[in-house]
Amino acid sequence: MANKFWSELTHRLTPYVPGEQRHGDKIVKLNTNENPYPPSPRVLEALAAVDGGALRRYPDPESVRLRTALADQHALDVANVFVGNGSDEILGLAFMAFFTAKSAQSTSPPASLQYPELSYSFYPVYCELLDIESCVRPLRDDFSIDMDAFEDNGGGIIFPNPNAPTSLAQSAQSIEALLIRVPNTLVLVDEAYVDFGAQSMVKLVNKYPNLVVSQTFSKSRSLAGMRLGAAYANNQLIEALTRVKNSFNSYPVDAVAQQAGIASISDEAYYQQTLMKVIRTRAETKLALEARGFRVLDSAANFLFVSPADKNACALYEHLNRQGVLVRFWSSASLAQWLRISIGTDEEMQALLKAIDEAEYAI
Amino acid sequence: MANKFWSELTHRLTPYVPGEQRHGDKIVKLNTNENPYPPSPRVLEALAAVDGGALRRYPDPESVRLRTALADQHALDVANVFVGNGSDEILGLAFMAFFTAKSAQSTSPPASLQYPELSYSFYPVYCELLDIESCVRPLRDDFSIDMDAFEDNGGGIIFPNPNAPTSLAQSAQSIEALLIRVPNTLVLVDEAYVDFGAQSMVKLVNKYPNLVVSQTFSKSRSLAGMRLGAAYANNQLIEALTRVKNSFNSYPVDAVAQQAGIASISDEAYYQQTLMKVIRTRAETKLALEARGFRVLDSAANFLFVSPADKNACALYEHLNRQGVLVRFWSSASLAQWLRISIGTDEEMQALLKAIDEAEYAI
Repeated sequence: MANKFWSELTHRLTPYVPGEQRHGDKIVKLNTNENPYPPSPRVLEALAAVDGGALRRYPDPESVRLRTALADQHALDVANVFVGNGSDEILGLAFMAFFTAKSAQSTSPPASLQYPELSYSFYPVYCELLDIESCVRPLRDDFSIDMDAFEDNGGGIIFPNPNAPTSLAQSAQSIEALLIRVPNTLVLVDEAYVDFGAQSMVKLVNKYPNLVVSQTFSKSRSLAGMRLGAAYANNQLIEALTRVKNSFNSYPVDAVAQQAGIASISDEAYYQQTLMKVIRTRAETKLALEARGFRVLDSAANFLFVSPADKNACALYEHLNRQGVLVRFWSSASLAQWLRISIGTDEEMQALLKAIDEAEYAI
Repeated sequence: MANKFWSELTHRLTPYVPGEQRHGDKIVKLNTNENPYPPSPRVLEALAAVDGGALRRYPDPESVRLRTALADQHALDVANVFVGNGSDEILGLAFMAFFTAKSAQSTSPPASLQYPELSYSFYPVYCELLDIESCVRPLRDDFSIDMDAFEDNGGGIIFPNPNAPTSLAQSAQSIEALLIRVPNTLVLVDEAYVDFGAQSMVKLVNKYPNLVVSQTFSKSRSLAGMRLGAAYANNQLIEALTRVKNSFNSYPVDAVAQQAGIASISDEAYYQQTLMKVIRTRAETKLALEARGFRVLDSAANFLFVSPADKNACALYEHLNRQGVLVRFWSSASLAQWLRISIGTDEEMQALLKAIDEAEYAI
């Protein structure tokens, strides 16, 4: 399909193929890293308490109350906090705010954005959308991010911590060493999964002028349906995000999402309880899979990156799919032996293990 | 302020200065074109009915149920409908999807985007953000859009109908004549205020391959706080919007907003009742202002564009502001005699008229 009214950009973009989203009572959905537990009851109370006056008026474009709640949580100033319509939108705005398009760079070759080869699949998509030169850094043999491979190139560095889909965390110490070693390069640490076991860099944003941290309410806060993310950085970097936001969409975070976010943050006990349940289930599932001969990387996230004993991940994926257990499989050669399995409830993980034990794929 | 980690784009962008957003019991807020009435009670019921399962999971990235409801409303196919985080986001995505950046054009001079001189202030902001060449077309002496001034330049044309801040509508006939006259140019009709009295072009999107229509739930549907907008076009143009959306943020419309939109559309009776109230109050306010010597343009929107008898709009604006009645004034020379006044409740308009009658500004 093509059309004469499409922009040059539209022609250039690769059409997106949505992931499988089967739903139903009998489906065990372990393929999109959603939290198996609902958000704090306070979030539902906040939704029920929204009145017509809050809906008919524009929301606070600065989301001051929500940003203040987040700032207080991390002992930062409100000027260190940015919020957006999910961390995906924040990443998109950050790519615009901090990384210069190839065509607008005077140096040749242009300063590139560096990211790990196996990483969040949206990074190359943003680079394509925004015409940003990218440089892919291979992982180490143990699947960890090779921090030494990043260069102080005056462009940028982005990586998730913990990384997806590998589930592995980098230590705060190794990230600090990087920040010090690349003082001319902006480092964006994508902490979508950090609450499940990695060390956050948020408290260091005023120490390192080249540090931006993004987080999301989608995973540990069980609010994927609400679209809410946050970024943390020194006030000048937040100003850059704000400028780009205000030139694209002044009001990305609606009034209901602002209230939901505030309610979620207020319930620390519920949040800790949910986290602990996911972390315990993760440990038990890892042991159970290892007992079945799987290789399972040390996860600091709400998913496991696993390789079955016979290494025929594709056959196992197809078997599980037929049994109504959805996990993530990639057809690329480098990942052909691996699956990514989200941590569900204990019952869902039992269903996974049962389906694995019944597998005839490995004959 | 400037920072070495800012992109070339961030340096280039003009910082946004938020509009005045005073709130309070005694404030009569007629400066942001919000609907004075709350949304349908069904919307609040939908919010209260959201469960934790809908929040912990990602929303439908395609918003199929909401788009189907909108398609049914206009006797279109779901493939003719796009939804986004407010019509601002939709306009931003549309600028990317349909208008090519200067730097990516091979022709010289580049094909430009044409829009009326007095129009939505975000159009030049998007052009700056996305490096799109713009061409401003002066209004006619009666403040109407000069449809004859638009050229078939292979670029684009965008205008609000009714226009803001003038409140004037173009007839569907005049827009059809334009669509026929510029077959090589994409025409984006921004119908943010159309429900208050102009003729929508939505039903013609499959007749004119160069037509895109954007609408919003913020005004006539009283959902400015919810951030929800829609675009209508033939399926190839919707595909362009979808490609850009999926390369920026797959899930801009959260699960709650999808439910709120569906609930709003379902309550046609409430919607018509609210519209009629705003339209009746508009007519009465226009007569009352004309009786006081004001010039008032024929409004098809939920606001009036007015010039006071002594033409000292700035003094009147300042007087009203001191009285707690907020209206919109622009300091630019061409608008120095004009105010934009949103239609509030009857009580709010009485407060406006009372404050005008008490004005000592015109001594």
